Amino acid sequence: MLEKGLVFMSDTRTNAGFDNISKFRKMTTWDTPGDRVLTLMSAGNLATTQAVVSILDERSKSPEDRAPSLLAVPSMFQAARMVAETLREVIDGHANVGQRASSTFHATLILGGQIAGGPPRLFLIYPEGNFIEASEDTPFFQVGETKYGRPILVRAYDPEMGFEEAMKLLLVSFDSTLKANLTVAAPFDFHFYETDSLEIRHKGRIEAEDPYYNDLSQGWGDALKATLDSLPDYTME
Amino acid sequence: MLEKGLVFMSDTRTNAGFDNISKFRKMTTWDTPGDRVLTLMSAGNLATTQAVVSILDERSKSPEDRAPSLLAVPSMFQAARMVAETLREVIDGHANVGQRASSTFHATLILGGQIAGGPPRLFLIYPEGNFIEASEDTPFFQVGETKYGRPILVRAYDPEMGFEEAMKLLLVSFDSTLKANLTVAAPFDFHFYETDSLEIRHKGRIEAEDPYYNDLSQGWGDALKATLDSLPDYTME
Repeated sequence: MLEKGLVFMSDTRTNAGFDNISKFRKMTTWDTPGDRVLTLMSAGNLATTQAVVSILDERSKSPEDRAPSLLAVPSMFQAARMVAETLREVIDGHANVGQRASSTFHATLILGGQIAGGPPRLFLIYPEGNFIEASEDTPFFQVGETKYGRPILVRAYDPEMGFEEAMKLLLVSFDSTLKANLTVAAPFDFHFYETDSLEIRHKGRIEAEDPYYNDLSQGWGDALKATLDSLPDYTME
Repeated sequence: MLEKGLVFMSDTRTNAGFDNISKFRKMTTWDTPGDRVLTLMSAGNLATTQAVVSILDERSKSPEDRAPSLLAVPSMFQAARMVAETLREVIDGHANVGQRASSTFHATLILGGQIAGGPPRLFLIYPEGNFIEASEDTPFFQVGETKYGRPILVRAYDPEMGFEEAMKLLLVSFDSTLKANLTVAAPFDFHFYETDSLEIRHKGRIEAEDPYYNDLSQGWGDALKATLDSLPDYTME
């Protein structure tokens, strides 16, 4: 959550074991230009998150059935409730019919966006169907493999940063994870939403071979080493 | 594992829930100057790791009973086997009498050192009693809360670094974890073993209020931000 707007980034790797990795988009955007833009990102069981997106998507596509649609809810809070409720229903549905260990169907979602008349808002939605909202004190959320990329976010996040700088920070954070963990991989999808624009302006994908990303990754690695070198060494007694 | 020797660092926080945190040393060293130096670090169940250390310690203190002692084994490999066997026995012992879920008694150990006649060696010992050895390809081990501090190790580790520089890297790695996770906290115990010295030379504790550590933590945070700033921003279309 920045002063300028909301920034989202997700990787595209899913896995069901080391020999079963695939590439799937984990970011979905719904919009009605001039009225609302909503972005959903997911981590966890792919069948669950795809079902949630499909249900929400079908609802938003049939105009006559728009009453319970993300394109019709009056506020971001109601949107979060709808997504959370859908998530809980999908998980419960799987858990009741098949395997009892519902934990394997778990998923966690991040929903952010703006609906005309309200400010941009950002939510973290738990598999149990409850959710929390980002605030000044906790201005960003991560889901999935969060730990490797967190230290740089904690240290360098600044609500006043622009989108160009935010892109750099997010790519560096993802790159730190990538270097240490096989479950996260490029390409990276991004959506940078400008407050009060109520339309999609900056949305796209950074490919693994993207020259900016590769220069950044290399440059960051070199700069980190140089930075560490620049700090005073310990003095052994 | 460095060309200069072996470097060890451990934090001192243990917890059994958020309202039950304590400070315990997680590093133990045994030595016979001129013959051997061994260092053991632990992560996991504190009762288990303390029992392992106590058993190994008692054996190494009674000269008449030295046959199965860490101070008598002929090689680092045999030392690793002895520690691993002790760990497995302690875990099995707890699991058989009390709670069946032996996973709660789990612990993972790092053992490193040198015994006269052999090179310095470094082992990671699993709760099942098996172990692996560090090599050129995998020159360092972490146990416990490993993820936050890993990216900087991956990026900045260099086998040719000296002890003064290694201290800096280890403190920065721990500090990244500290900033993100409540289960890791200063003071930090360290032991830097010089190859072929066969004695303890650099062993001590970095307190939370240590001025070098605090300057480093502050300097690293500032430098990280400056480093990120120095890299080119993304250009939005």
